[in-house]
Amino acid sequence: MIALGDTFLHNFHFSQKEVNLFAEVTGDNNPIHIDSEYASKTMFNKPIMHGMLGACIFSKVFGTLFPGEGTIYLNQELKFSKPMYVEKEYTAFFEVTEVNVEKHRAKIDTFIKDEEGNIVTSGSALIMNVSKI
Amino acid sequence: MIALGDTFLHNFHFSQKEVNLFAEVTGDNNPIHIDSEYASKTMFNKPIMHGMLGACIFSKVFGTLFPGEGTIYLNQELKFSKPMYVEKEYTAFFEVTEVNVEKHRAKIDTFIKDEEGNIVTSGSALIMNVSKI
Repeated sequence: MIALGDTFLHNFHFSQKEVNLFAEVTGDNNPIHIDSEYASKTMFNKPIMHGMLGACIFSKVFGTLFPGEGTIYLNQELKFSKPMYVEKEYTAFFEVTEVNVEKHRAKIDTFIKDEEGNIVTSGSALIMNVSKI
Repeated sequence: MIALGDTFLHNFHFSQKEVNLFAEVTGDNNPIHIDSEYASKTMFNKPIMHGMLGACIFSKVFGTLFPGEGTIYLNQELKFSKPMYVEKEYTAFFEVTEVNVEKHRAKIDTFIKDEEGNIVTSGSALIMNVSKI
């Protein structure tokens, strides 16, 4: 069961192969994500991840880990404040800020930090889970 | 160049194979998305898409079509109001609601409708594109 103040964290990174596959599946084949020569001529110097791929970690955690199976995703706000790089290590953080037990809903702050502690993506989510909230 | 009031639309659908691949890449392997037998016993009756996969269409369009190459994604609000089904046809709609030419930024309403005209996902985005806004 999820309660007010509960926290969770999840470490992750994405390889260039995974980013290429994500580009293929979603059709989001902007060269900044998949072409290292193109990326080297931009302000980022190297390929950056799709912001949405980083955000997918929130969906993964809600649906499979915290609170897990049975989660229905209702809302997600996303602020992409810094680029996320391919092959770099990140940690997604979660904190339950509101719980409505009658409606089985929880509001959860979501953010991603790099290893230097910089917030790269932030926002908040609203989820429902009949058996776990 | 993008101007206030500009609109854009993009039709799409995702096959079960693509949804399975998305589950694999993101790690979001909730059985509701990939296991038709499991899904048949839920309120949805059949596999539903990851809400985030639907939202990826917004990222795809911004990065590749409207306004296209060079787009930097800053913010996205998402409300997943109805389930999206695998193999079903959808249309993503875009409308520019604010433009800041000095900062090369635009606020764009984003929503997805099914063929019956129901809004399944909605929200708004903030993007930057130095050469197109």
